[in-house]
Amino acid sequence: MENSVGIQESLFSIYALWESAVNSLASAIQVNHDRLMESIAQLAEIGALPNGGVQRLAFSEEDCLARELVQRWMRETGMQVRIDPAGNIIGRYDGRANGGAKQPVAALVTGSHIDTVPNAGHYDGAYGVLAGLEVVRSLRDDPLTLNHPLDVIVFTDEERTMVGCKALSGNLGHDAEAYRSATGEPIEQCLARVGGDWSRRAFARLTPADVAAFVELHVEQGPVLEAAEKEIGVVTGIVGQRRYVFTVKGQASHAGTTPMSMRQDALVAASKLVLAVHALGNQSGDQVATVGSLEVSPNVANTVPDRVELSLDIRDLDDDHLDRLMMKLQEEMACIAIDTKTKIELSPLLRNYPSLANSHIQNAITQVCDNLSLSHMHLPSRASHDAQEMARITDMGMIFVPSESGISHSETEYTSPEQCVQGANVLLRTLLQLDQHYRCSQ
Amino acid sequence: MENSVGIQESLFSIYALWESAVNSLASAIQVNHDRLMESIAQLAEIGALPNGGVQRLAFSEEDCLARELVQRWMRETGMQVRIDPAGNIIGRYDGRANGGAKQPVAALVTGSHIDTVPNAGHYDGAYGVLAGLEVVRSLRDDPLTLNHPLDVIVFTDEERTMVGCKALSGNLGHDAEAYRSATGEPIEQCLARVGGDWSRRAFARLTPADVAAFVELHVEQGPVLEAAEKEIGVVTGIVGQRRYVFTVKGQASHAGTTPMSMRQDALVAASKLVLAVHALGNQSGDQVATVGSLEVSPNVANTVPDRVELSLDIRDLDDDHLDRLMMKLQEEMACIAIDTKTKIELSPLLRNYPSLANSHIQNAITQVCDNLSLSHMHLPSRASHDAQEMARITDMGMIFVPSESGISHSETEYTSPEQCVQGANVLLRTLLQLDQHYRCSQ
Repeated sequence: MENSVGIQESLFSIYALWESAVNSLASAIQVNHDRLMESIAQLAEIGALPNGGVQRLAFSEEDCLARELVQRWMRETGMQVRIDPAGNIIGRYDGRANGGAKQPVAALVTGSHIDTVPNAGHYDGAYGVLAGLEVVRSLRDDPLTLNHPLDVIVFTDEERTMVGCKALSGNLGHDAEAYRSATGEPIEQCLARVGGDWSRRAFARLTPADVAAFVELHVEQGPVLEAAEKEIGVVTGIVGQRRYVFTVKGQASHAGTTPMSMRQDALVAASKLVLAVHALGNQSGDQVATVGSLEVSPNVANTVPDRVELSLDIRDLDDDHLDRLMMKLQEEMACIAIDTKTKIELSPLLRNYPSLANSHIQNAITQVCDNLSLSHMHLPSRASHDAQEMARITDMGMIFVPSESGISHSETEYTSPEQCVQGANVLLRTLLQLDQHYRCSQ
Repeated sequence: MENSVGIQESLFSIYALWESAVNSLASAIQVNHDRLMESIAQLAEIGALPNGGVQRLAFSEEDCLARELVQRWMRETGMQVRIDPAGNIIGRYDGRANGGAKQPVAALVTGSHIDTVPNAGHYDGAYGVLAGLEVVRSLRDDPLTLNHPLDVIVFTDEERTMVGCKALSGNLGHDAEAYRSATGEPIEQCLARVGGDWSRRAFARLTPADVAAFVELHVEQGPVLEAAEKEIGVVTGIVGQRRYVFTVKGQASHAGTTPMSMRQDALVAASKLVLAVHALGNQSGDQVATVGSLEVSPNVANTVPDRVELSLDIRDLDDDHLDRLMMKLQEEMACIAIDTKTKIELSPLLRNYPSLANSHIQNAITQVCDNLSLSHMHLPSRASHDAQEMARITDMGMIFVPSESGISHSETEYTSPEQCVQGANVLLRTLLQLDQHYRCSQ
């Protein structure tokens, strides 16, 4: 017994020595500035637009070419590359613990997407994928092997349907129609073209046995970091999002001959709704609430409108808070309907639940920032990301770098090379920390 | 001298006897219920729609057929029919004073239009023309000849460009483009087809030497008479109308990632404008103010709108009051722009000055209603009518009959046969009164 304790203590002190050696190695390692920026520039050549922007709609020729290039780069970095049934590209950098394992070891995973919206910039999605690749390249240069396998995933079609990350989290739903491409092509054909197989989509699902943790690096796509003059954002979670449509029904009548008191003006009611939504967004709290689209009927200058349809998009990290806000809005909606002698209906279109970032991963990112003397702040992500689906099956974290003027989904999207490299270094160090934190259960 | 006075007195007493005889004849005369309603029904067959409505866009085949029919009816009633250069159909029922006159005698004029909006009803315009025709038919039946010639005018294209009445008032402007038909056909071709001649449009102009007074009978196209339970409306004038477009410029941004405090939401500003316009309409006074059309850009649910264009239509009988209202609105507009961090521009599109109805004609209509025991009220017309142009050259009056539920420009537009006949009788008696009131200067 004494001996066994002694052996354990010895092993422990050896382990501690090894850990400190790894840490000191790790504290020196950093990504290659030029290689990262060169990769971002090269990928942006695929689907380049004359205005300096990029367009690689999911499953388009440009998207397929970009997928080929990233796979080639992964293989050149010594990664094993597979395409899962949902078309996700999964590049693996083997870990130390992989060697003798009877069971596959859960991987540390990073990644993002390389498909874009129409007329996009260079950074949204692509940056996270290429920084993940750069992390592996840097580990290999060193060379440094992690305990865990490290996977870099290129998620399929993040911008429109999120089919890739939803397949991984087992959250696809049954309706293939919902996943048609922007050009209307059935998802079966789309996936077949990129090496996936819709009929086998259930096999894409990952479990906690497959993934130890997921960390996504992304541009903020908002103005908060820039305004706060912070270099790194530690994401607290991805907000829940609810989308609704209001339908206001009034009575069309002549804009001249109908006295004010006898009107049932659907646009007056709709305007009150827009301001009620805006006021809801401005209440104390972190929520945002927006009416982005509004359609008037018959929409002619000399007719009191009889029908208006308007959208509502409301987001917060706290789902109960969203419930309370919606309850309040529905009360106001009823008052507006009475005031304006109109009927107002509210129909739900979409409901995404919040995905909270794991607190240990948030702490790891914070600590890495402190070590690297990078200024940082916590903030929620109010945009959707592949990470929100990964949070359903594993511990999730996200790292943000600033977006100039908060602009994204535009050819003017910009994050400086220095900021890109800072973010990639934070990703690298965070993965090294997590590699220590998570046990390799075999 | 004494003799001469005696002769004058004798002549005067003869004239008084004759006048009272005419009045007693006139007090018995009334329009033919069935003939009037049959004419309305027959005209409504031209351009009849499956839903019971009517469509006779100006210069369309249906409009041309309707014009032919009305001209035939005029000739069958013994009227002289001419087409002026603006395509106006002018049917004349000769007056007594016409006979020996060296100079043409100024005419009493009534009339309206037979072109329609898309998907119209049976009464707007057509009722005024056919009631005018019925007045002549009834006079001829009796038979009764007026001192003045009585003209019934079918004004060209009231619904879109008012080219007919504007030519008569000398208010056409020089831009032929403004008078293209709904199908884009140049006005030159349109007028040529109906017997007019654009190049000679200046000769269509009428002067006070041509017209002693103008009275138009029309359906109210609003709900005021019905709500007040009045049979006849004595129109006090046709309101001035101003049309503007607001352009609100904000900043497009992501509806998730842009904090509420950093938004420049053009739709929030536009909604405040809609409510400011509505409040302006609801101030004490007789004005109405409407935002009927509103276009949002980019109009997608997850983007804060960067641009909204919205219409403003504001009407009142008092042009100075409109000036004061617009001044107040522009002050509020400036405050809204500051509050919402947007830029707002206001561009004028249209300005029609008010046309006041002649007080003697209003009194004549009121007296006729009292004689016929018809309930009545004074009200402004807040819709445009040919009468507003006629008021520029002569004394103008308008008679309204109720519109069921205030509905017009719709296949459900309805005025009962009893109401139609009441209105036509008021028109007939009013013209007889005005025939006595206005001297025939020869």
